[in-house]
Amino acid sequence: MSDSPLSPASLRTRIQQLLLQLPPVQRADARYHEVEQELLHGLKQRLESLNEPGELEGPPHSLHELLDVSMEQSVSQAQAMLLQRQLEQLTADEARLLAALSDGSAFPLLTVQSGGRFSRGEVLHRYSNVGRAAGIQCNDFIALYLSRLFAQGLVIASAFTESLRTDYELCEGDSGFRSAEAELKSHLPKLSTRRETLRISPLGRQLWTLMTIPADVEE
Amino acid sequence: MSDSPLSPASLRTRIQQLLLQLPPVQRADARYHEVEQELLHGLKQRLESLNEPGELEGPPHSLHELLDVSMEQSVSQAQAMLLQRQLEQLTADEARLLAALSDGSAFPLLTVQSGGRFSRGEVLHRYSNVGRAAGIQCNDFIALYLSRLFAQGLVIASAFTESLRTDYELCEGDSGFRSAEAELKSHLPKLSTRRETLRISPLGRQLWTLMTIPADVEE
Amino acid sequence: MSDSPLSPASLRTRIQQLLLQLPPVQRADARYHEVEQELLHGLKQRLESLNEPGELEGPPHSLHELLDVSMEQSVSQAQAMLLQRQLEQLTADEARLLAALSDGSAFPLLTVQSGGRFSRGEVLHRYSNVGRAAGIQCNDFIALYLSRLFAQGLVIASAFTESLRTDYELCEGDSGFRSAEAELKSHLPKLSTRRETLRISPLGRQLWTLMTIPADVEE
Repeated sequence: MSDSPLSPASLRTRIQQLLLQLPPVQRADARYHEVEQELLHGLKQRLESLNEPGELEGPPHSLHELLDVSMEQSVSQAQAMLLQRQLEQLTADEARLLAALSDGSAFPLLTVQSGGRFSRGEVLHRYSNVGRAAGIQCNDFIALYLSRLFAQGLVIASAFTESLRTDYELCEGDSGFRSAEAELKSHLPKLSTRRETLRISPLGRQLWTLMTIPADVEE
Repeated sequence: MSDSPLSPASLRTRIQQLLLQLPPVQRADARYHEVEQELLHGLKQRLESLNEPGELEGPPHSLHELLDVSMEQSVSQAQAMLLQRQLEQLTADEARLLAALSDGSAFPLLTVQSGGRFSRGEVLHRYSNVGRAAGIQCNDFIALYLSRLFAQGLVIASAFTESLRTDYELCEGDSGFRSAEAELKSHLPKLSTRRETLRISPLGRQLWTLMTIPADVEE
Repeated sequence: MSDSPLSPASLRTRIQQLLLQLPPVQRADARYHEVEQELLHGLKQRLESLNEPGELEGPPHSLHELLDVSMEQSVSQAQAMLLQRQLEQLTADEARLLAALSDGSAFPLLTVQSGGRFSRGEVLHRYSNVGRAAGIQCNDFIALYLSRLFAQGLVIASAFTESLRTDYELCEGDSGFRSAEAELKSHLPKLSTRRETLRISPLGRQLWTLMTIPADVEE
């Protein structure tokens, strides 16, 4: 680099050139990289440090963390945590199914179980046409959705509803249901299919009420 | 901008003015924006690339990812993954319930089920006063908590405990329990409520032991 | 700072000194801090704003959010959401268990249940040697894995398989199984252990098929 006489115009140019080689720019890059790494590695921990006492952002990392949180939890925080855990398990289609059941509506339900008609065994498969009324996207998955809602205790199978006779017959003719039933029959000598009624459970109703109340417990 | 003669003082001022217009500052802003976008879009993927082999940060995106992880997993990593999945499902109140049961303590449990006394059907609702002993925040949710703990296999319903007779009577008088029972009765002609005993299950005990051991399997 | 005559060399030095004191560097630090805070606080919300309509990055924050998503969901998006929820619950060992069962293979299963041989009650504990065939890491957790897979409806217990007689005897001799059985017996007067067969359920098969199809529904 020649040390030419300084004119204001050339000075400006030189400053520009110098600036590109000077520490701040390089430092900025290094610092950017640093910040980035720090962010990536520390993000989870730091997001959690933003938590209010009695709350957890994201899943707990240990039982102790969960028990610590429980020491500082208010009723509304405990409630919010339960709602969050339940929400995490629901799909959009399942939310629609609950919505369709939330007013106490009853839908035909077919339950395939091991054991004969008088010695009830385990439930193996379920089917209902509730999906159409609820307007879900994946009717092919209705058996899986039902399995998940029953496992969460949000719905119950109540007694046969006489007035739904035609619906039961339509359900029994569903090809997906029939092939599942046939597959199960090939493995279990005794199997029975019951006509039952799908309803929201008391727990499901309790949860639905809470989930539909405008929540001011969370920011 | 006039080209005035250069005095050291005016030079300093000019440099400041120049700097504000020069590339580094603008570049810094552009680069910030870039980094930010990159971070937002790539964060998930990159957090995962920080994983040790045999571990997953966050949920799997595909079955193949999960099977890949399984190829490289050690016993302690498989154990840590199971503990993590279980922890993700627990609320702070539920951790307290498990803590109260973890020493083998027994609590009265009421179980409403379909079917009569001799032809047991499905469990529809459960209630216990364990919440008070455990010091949970949401006693109103005890039925939902119990449903969740049973679904995870962490607790069992064992036989009636004679010495808890008074407790059973208190539980049977709980207004929340009675209204759930009444709602279920309106839908099911045969329904029976059993007095049982709530205990931690062998699985619950196994999990509790692992969760309370200081873990050096995770960072 | 002395106002020494300006030589090109000293100018360069002075510029360096000046730069360190000038706004851009300090501003850069302040801005970094700002960006960082903004990122940390806003990250979740903004990651979500990157979502396509009908999709959710991360768990829903409210039922309304979930119902909103359902309004815009396509069939493949609803399917992807269900697969994601199911994947979130699986561990790597559980994926291996499903893989071992996915071709219809049958494994011996021991089921401990309340009630006698003819009055079936609730399932309390399960055991199988499927873990060895599947090559899982944590065989000690097989009872917990089975509990979780049954709870998700992915596997079924079908009738006793005569040809597996030796396997059943080996399973019955497992020390972990025997101690769980003994613990349960101490709490339940009537208890029976059944020899059953572990198979993938129709739901498990449906899910497996979907999870192993190359997904182009997600980016």
